[in-house]
Amino acid sequence: MSKIKGNMLIAQSGGPTVVINQSLVGAIIEGKKHKEIENIYGSLFGIKGILEGNLVDLKKEKISNLKKVAQTPCAALGSVRKKPKDEECEEIFKNMQKYNIRYFFYIGGNDSAETAYILNENAKKVNYEFKCFHIPKTIDNDLKENDHTPGYGSAAKFVAMAIIGDNLDNKSLPGIKIDVIMGRHAGFLTAASSLAKIYEDDAPHLIYFPERPFIIDKFLKDVEEVYKKYNRCLIAVSEGITDEKGEPIAAKFTKEVDSHGNVQLSGTGFLGDLLADIVKRELKVDRVRADTFGYLQRSFPGIYSEVDAKEAYKVGELAVKYAVGKYENGSVTIKRERGKKYKVYYELVPLENVAKETRCMPDEFINENANWVTEKFIEYAKPLVGKLPEIGVFKKYRVF
Amino acid sequence: MSKIKGNMLIAQSGGPTVVINQSLVGAIIEGKKHKEIENIYGSLFGIKGILEGNLVDLKKEKISNLKKVAQTPCAALGSVRKKPKDEECEEIFKNMQKYNIRYFFYIGGNDSAETAYILNENAKKVNYEFKCFHIPKTIDNDLKENDHTPGYGSAAKFVAMAIIGDNLDNKSLPGIKIDVIMGRHAGFLTAASSLAKIYEDDAPHLIYFPERPFIIDKFLKDVEEVYKKYNRCLIAVSEGITDEKGEPIAAKFTKEVDSHGNVQLSGTGFLGDLLADIVKRELKVDRVRADTFGYLQRSFPGIYSEVDAKEAYKVGELAVKYAVGKYENGSVTIKRERGKKYKVYYELVPLENVAKETRCMPDEFINENANWVTEKFIEYAKPLVGKLPEIGVFKKYRVF
Repeated sequence: MSKIKGNMLIAQSGGPTVVINQSLVGAIIEGKKHKEIENIYGSLFGIKGILEGNLVDLKKEKISNLKKVAQTPCAALGSVRKKPKDEECEEIFKNMQKYNIRYFFYIGGNDSAETAYILNENAKKVNYEFKCFHIPKTIDNDLKENDHTPGYGSAAKFVAMAIIGDNLDNKSLPGIKIDVIMGRHAGFLTAASSLAKIYEDDAPHLIYFPERPFIIDKFLKDVEEVYKKYNRCLIAVSEGITDEKGEPIAAKFTKEVDSHGNVQLSGTGFLGDLLADIVKRELKVDRVRADTFGYLQRSFPGIYSEVDAKEAYKVGELAVKYAVGKYENGSVTIKRERGKKYKVYYELVPLENVAKETRCMPDEFINENANWVTEKFIEYAKPLVGKLPEIGVFKKYRVF
Repeated sequence: MSKIKGNMLIAQSGGPTVVINQSLVGAIIEGKKHKEIENIYGSLFGIKGILEGNLVDLKKEKISNLKKVAQTPCAALGSVRKKPKDEECEEIFKNMQKYNIRYFFYIGGNDSAETAYILNENAKKVNYEFKCFHIPKTIDNDLKENDHTPGYGSAAKFVAMAIIGDNLDNKSLPGIKIDVIMGRHAGFLTAASSLAKIYEDDAPHLIYFPERPFIIDKFLKDVEEVYKKYNRCLIAVSEGITDEKGEPIAAKFTKEVDSHGNVQLSGTGFLGDLLADIVKRELKVDRVRADTFGYLQRSFPGIYSEVDAKEAYKVGELAVKYAVGKYENGSVTIKRERGKKYKVYYELVPLENVAKETRCMPDEFINENANWVTEKFIEYAKPLVGKLPEIGVFKKYRVF
């Protein structure tokens, strides 16, 4: 079926990013160029829209509006977290048949790749002819087969900028500050906080990743040491840190409180507050504060990495090129060329390669003390994030 | 003493803002122009630096570096929260005498104005000759005598942008979202979230201010109504909301938990998490999330209002002009001219006028239901914040 004529359907899934609509618009604009693709539809809220017959016509959108949408954060078609059951797949193909969908593109992370994989496998069973592609997206940067993923560079830039600002805040009013950063299993985004450091005494002073067990006593010793040296300490910590048994620190304490029937945790500020509380109590420091960067990391408008935006557009465009070409299905991936200068190339890989497990930070990115990154990580991340705002500090000529 | 020759000392105090160094650099550059001012010193960490003789020479700083510092968030000289005691005033004047300080400028909020006032009163007692000025700064926008304060416009822009992004996030993955915004007594910053709303169904759907009692039952009713209408609800709430007796909601619950000895609250995510928990339990909605914007609101680099930056520079510059002119002391204030077009003028007022109580939002800025702003507020705030990023949304032509 390498040549097939029909309609194209595209949808978005999983947590939003600031550049997820770049991929969407890249695919739409490329789709318009090929006569094999008759109509271009978007499904609202991922596969939920296909199940409910909730489709919109994207070919009718003006180019000027498409360009605006591309620069707008978060899923313009709406998103969903949903794994299709077998009976739902049947329903999906019924609707795909109705709308003559022959090209399907799903933008998302590993769960979305799995959905694409499930649909592709089920299509074979019922002999539904379509081409099925996954377009990568995740601020977590945890997709297998990829050097990095669209969405990561921009979220990493937001995190680095937030830490640049918070470092200055913490220098103004010294104390201990804990910043909780997204990343349930992979520490890539938390690690990006390291890019904020310019001068020797700059934050972050300590970074903790989900890839290494978080030992409270060691953490307190680390913090105390920094605090003695600089009279302040700013810590970047991943929301996903776990104890030696792999149990999330947040969950552990939540349960403890729950069993007393007082606080049923649901929000996102809990881990930061808890760590701040432990530090305050154990180190007897008055000014201890915690911030949880939350959804701003993946949705703040205007803060994006140019490299990231460009690559996000490219993976969308390429998915359509692969589909109208000789390929039947697959996931578009980003690989990096070896060498000093940053350069990437793209490769189509089988859906199941990306759909299965996620990846974590390689050991070579985490220092021996498990409390900072290595130079290798900084070399890796810098080109993905791009230029950060310049900071001015006084020379501070002392008066005697 | 209206003509006096000697050295100038400047310092920063209270919570940082993104434009506080504009005022500092405005004052330094103006100070360099006047022969009455021989040296220009900066005190590190507010009046603490004067007490400890911790001064730096600011005249030696290059103009190119001053310009960089002006654009850098948070107090470049360090800040402090400190009210001088009588014996400390004596120490301060001893050191001022030593360094021949005759022009003193203190950048900060109402507490800093109070410090300037205390120093000025104590100087009279000991016959210390100096000119003492307060330069306004606060993201809370709560200084008396001012139409608005330097720092507010930029923080308000950050909040509006964060809500623009979070609205898109919440549209992508619908649910109930609570965003906690700074402002202990005044709701100006929380109110700025309203500027994010463009389309009828945009967030924030509800806004709660410290100026009105926060009644949980009414809050739940409000949220339920919005949720029924849009299948989602995004709420902007001030960290300083209180119950009918004026007790902070956060403190009330903290105590409750404290009495069980489980969680000693210290961080900042608590209020959001608690409200999310109440909503989840009472309205039986699965997806309820909370974010607390925290220190990013006052420190995030690169996000500033141009009007705010310009005015912040101007109040610093003007303070020095007043001081080398006929004035002995006072606080620089910003007033707005009546009329359609945004235009301000500046006025020097007595220190004690700004030093005493803070101000809250006027009644005409809060709607009758106490859950949104009025058109008057939007007219007031728009010119202070300036242009916000443009958002693209699909026309969504339905496919049948």
